[in-house]
Amino acid sequence: MPTLHVELFAGRPPAVKAELARALTDACVAVLGSPADAVQVVFHDVARHDWATGGVLWSARAPAPPEPGAAA
Amino acid sequence: MPTLHVELFAGRPPAVKAELARALTDACVAVLGSPADAVQVVFHDVARHDWATGGVLWSARAPAPPEPGAAA
Amino acid sequence: MPTLHVELFAGRPPAVKAELARALTDACVAVLGSPADAVQVVFHDVARHDWATGGVLWSARAPAPPEPGAAA
Amino acid sequence: MPTLHVELFAGRPPAVKAELARALTDACVAVLGSPADAVQVVFHDVARHDWATGGVLWSARAPAPPEPGAAA
Amino acid sequence: MPTLHVELFAGRPPAVKAELARALTDACVAVLGSPADAVQVVFHDVARHDWATGGVLWSARAPAPPEPGAAA
Amino acid sequence: MPTLHVELFAGRPPAVKAELARALTDACVAVLGSPADAVQVVFHDVARHDWATGGVLWSARAPAPPEPGAAA
Repeated sequence: MPTLHVELFAGRPPAVKAELARALTDACVAVLGSPADAVQVVFHDVARHDWATGGVLWSARAPAPPEPGAAA
Repeated sequence: MPTLHVELFAGRPPAVKAELARALTDACVAVLGSPADAVQVVFHDVARHDWATGGVLWSARAPAPPEPGAAA
Repeated sequence: MPTLHVELFAGRPPAVKAELARALTDACVAVLGSPADAVQVVFHDVARHDWATGGVLWSARAPAPPEPGAAA
Repeated sequence: MPTLHVELFAGRPPAVKAELARALTDACVAVLGSPADAVQVVFHDVARHDWATGGVLWSARAPAPPEPGAAA
Repeated sequence: MPTLHVELFAGRPPAVKAELARALTDACVAVLGSPADAVQVVFHDVARHDWATGGVLWSARAPAPPEPGAAA
Repeated sequence: MPTLHVELFAGRPPAVKAELARALTDACVAVLGSPADAVQVVFHDVARHDWATGGVLWSARAPAPPEPGAAA
């Protein structure tokens, strides 16, 4: 019955979320012994202008180099 | 002072949310004895490609038959 | 598939939470047409010293008169 | 390591969120002694038709007078 | 920068949470390409009397058979 | 109407939370123009064995030097 809420920067394509949901669920099944159907994963996209670290919004920082899986 | 965060699939029309907010608030008033004005209800729409059960996004499943109150 | 997170002041006995879970689930079934088994309700007890309104913790306020269902 | 999730009505311009993120972070640094870089602030915009108080959605209420910092 | 909030039934020993945190972080690193240090995992224990499915608290159901990793 | 959920390591005394609630509320009043009574602050204590960064629980790390406001 674990439920995972995943906050991540907006822009990941659905195929990446699908793969991540599967990997996170596999981790819960392997470590907790939960039945897969009992695992819920909910994604919450967060825009860079809605997340601050150290008091500075990420939209105000220089962009990071592209990551694998990021929307091109 | 109860606060309810309600995650539900996106697509419900405002009239349905209005009715649900009223029904949830009524339940808190009836069971907890809270004054109605102390009850907060916040809806969070979740897209089908942002919710997975059993490691599979709901956008990758066959659609369920239509429900009463669902957006047509 | 609606999931409700309910924050409420700590101290409600399990019987009251059981009744509230049932009433909230009934509301989702009636208004959204969700199958009951798809409705999740999760309670989060919040101590009065962990909740502030207007910048003042509820533990620093005069207690409210007792409510029906409150722990005696 | 404090993380703040801030739910607020949608419509605040990024400059206001930037200022609020800075002020909230400063408060954590001043009161908790946290290093600024350890403070995370995440904003969650909530539409007026997704927030109810007393069982009534804010979209169904008369609008409040404009506030400083609100989107014009 | 993904942050995972994991709600699970109370009773898992710290060693299981440590292993799960590692596995979930590995999944984010592998799928999203996030640097490991940017991944936050926060566990929220939920008592069986604080979680209802289908309107029935899990504390009112027959216990499930023991799972690997569950507190003995 | 902003609501702030503040996750922080367990162990802060109520006086520190009281001061932080006041400072966060003041920030919302000053920046957003919200009436103070419309600002809600909810604290969520997180144990060091329930929070991982980089896949490692904070309970498995060397303790940080004491901070001002930390429980002695």
